[in-house]
Amino acid sequence: MALSEFELIERFFSHIGHPREDVLLGVGDDCALVQVPAGENLAVSVDTLVEGVHFYAGTDPEKLGHKALAVNLSDLAAMGAIPAWATLALTLPESDSEWLKSFMRGFSALANRHRVQLVGGDTTRGALSVTIQVHGFVPPGKALTRDAARAGERIGITGTLGDAGLALQQMAGGRLPEKWLRERLEAPSPRLAAGLALRDLATSAIDVSDGLLADLGHICARSRVGARLELWNLPLSHEVDEHIKMSGDWSLPLTAGDDYELCFTVPPDSCRQIEAALGGIEERVAWIGVVEKDPGIRCLNADGRQIEAGQGGYQHFQSAK
Amino acid sequence: MALSEFELIERFFSHIGHPREDVLLGVGDDCALVQVPAGENLAVSVDTLVEGVHFYAGTDPEKLGHKALAVNLSDLAAMGAIPAWATLALTLPESDSEWLKSFMRGFSALANRHRVQLVGGDTTRGALSVTIQVHGFVPPGKALTRDAARAGERIGITGTLGDAGLALQQMAGGRLPEKWLRERLEAPSPRLAAGLALRDLATSAIDVSDGLLADLGHICARSRVGARLELWNLPLSHEVDEHIKMSGDWSLPLTAGDDYELCFTVPPDSCRQIEAALGGIEERVAWIGVVEKDPGIRCLNADGRQIEAGQGGYQHFQSAK
Repeated sequence: MALSEFELIERFFSHIGHPREDVLLGVGDDCALVQVPAGENLAVSVDTLVEGVHFYAGTDPEKLGHKALAVNLSDLAAMGAIPAWATLALTLPESDSEWLKSFMRGFSALANRHRVQLVGGDTTRGALSVTIQVHGFVPPGKALTRDAARAGERIGITGTLGDAGLALQQMAGGRLPEKWLRERLEAPSPRLAAGLALRDLATSAIDVSDGLLADLGHICARSRVGARLELWNLPLSHEVDEHIKMSGDWSLPLTAGDDYELCFTVPPDSCRQIEAALGGIEERVAWIGVVEKDPGIRCLNADGRQIEAGQGGYQHFQSAK
Repeated sequence: MALSEFELIERFFSHIGHPREDVLLGVGDDCALVQVPAGENLAVSVDTLVEGVHFYAGTDPEKLGHKALAVNLSDLAAMGAIPAWATLALTLPESDSEWLKSFMRGFSALANRHRVQLVGGDTTRGALSVTIQVHGFVPPGKALTRDAARAGERIGITGTLGDAGLALQQMAGGRLPEKWLRERLEAPSPRLAAGLALRDLATSAIDVSDGLLADLGHICARSRVGARLELWNLPLSHEVDEHIKMSGDWSLPLTAGDDYELCFTVPPDSCRQIEAALGGIEERVAWIGVVEKDPGIRCLNADGRQIEAGQGGYQHFQSAK
């Protein structure tokens, strides 16, 4: 049976996530009322996922609920912020309580894990899309922005690159990826603990959503620097490594995107400290290049030759060239 | 020429609205960074408008930019909150810089009027929809919630009811409404000054977005009370009054919605004070009924008879009955 909008909200949006004392009024009034701790700045980010653009029609709603929150939490991670609250604007072709129940299960599990409470929501009818806004705390002056990378610094990255792209490529070719690989695409883990550990050590950070070249490119543009990438140092899973060896094509780790690893810059003498800090939270770190004065990103092969790599990265509106 | 997503954001989302000192980092990084004044609570609300559901295809983008922000600011007004920041998630079928320029013009004009700064945005490709989240400040314990109406209190309303519904009805019938009437539908004014004036005097408030019966119904449900509405006291424009006289149909002011007036409850001995407070900001106020102990809303005609009025109000997912 179809439900009214208000029944939907009441039933599925109330009491979602970790109940927090700083939420004075949650879902169900004109606004939510929340309280930012004294002395903290508020970090805010919003992201939309659209069916057919950011995820396949028919994607498991539980996975989608996880991923829609994860990509937003990833933005907080890239700022070094601690997550607190989320709002959810869901546009659905029809009110389907089984679908919603499953979506909220995925959303809630991740929200609980990171002590996030859902404080507001809106449901509308239309083509399926999910807009989530997240809020987190960061002490004044401590946020990891994109504009403070300096020439001579090392470029670091968490995890491995290109797995989500490989999973997508296999699925586009009609092949079902292995479970772990599919999880990398459908259920990414926001690197929140890493962002927190980097807060006092890194000079800049970004999460890799649109591809390494595009996202490192944002740091370079904002900081008015360039970068040299050492391809032999890129952290790759066995599968992505094999794919590159067979095809000679580096686009998976460089431009495919959807990895949600953190890319950051650090003064060379802080590398050991960062390895220790990330080791403490069992987060893998690789040093993949150096910040340089000249604008642009240069990709070097193991034999020192510069290779041509697409400068693109995933964009929702491709430039007409 | 089509623009890349980043060029779109840079060009249209930067420096939008009133520049505020409490915005430490605006559009263009992983998150925005903002600062809530010491001792204030943060009010947060999110609303989505979908083409074909909340507005006609081909709606003037400047009007849409205004309305999408206005319906969100209206939620802050209904809490008695002072607006501060907004984020904007735009899903567009194509990147059309003329459309965007016009949309942002409508958004900016209203944002500037209420000293709101745009601090974050996301653009995605898909069926046209607009999701805006607004943030505002309200002192602890001062917010106008929906749960504190008490039997015996008077029910007040700002402005007039049913104009937006009449405009929509005329447009659906292929007729172009008069300019002022069309403005009531396409460019509603959020009653922010009224919300602020009501903050210390009203016991509860809501904005009329889904229709008076539905929205007053939310106050009644949350406060566990009912209401008696005196139809002869409903504030109506000449045109809506004529329409009711001719048709005998009260649905425009009762269930059509999209009015964005404030409906509120007050102890009887505060009515004069409220009239004085709203008079000071040139806001019309009408007393349209009484809060009662029995649940449900009863609509009384001028001769004291109870009339049957649809309990609905606009819902995005109609119940299957």
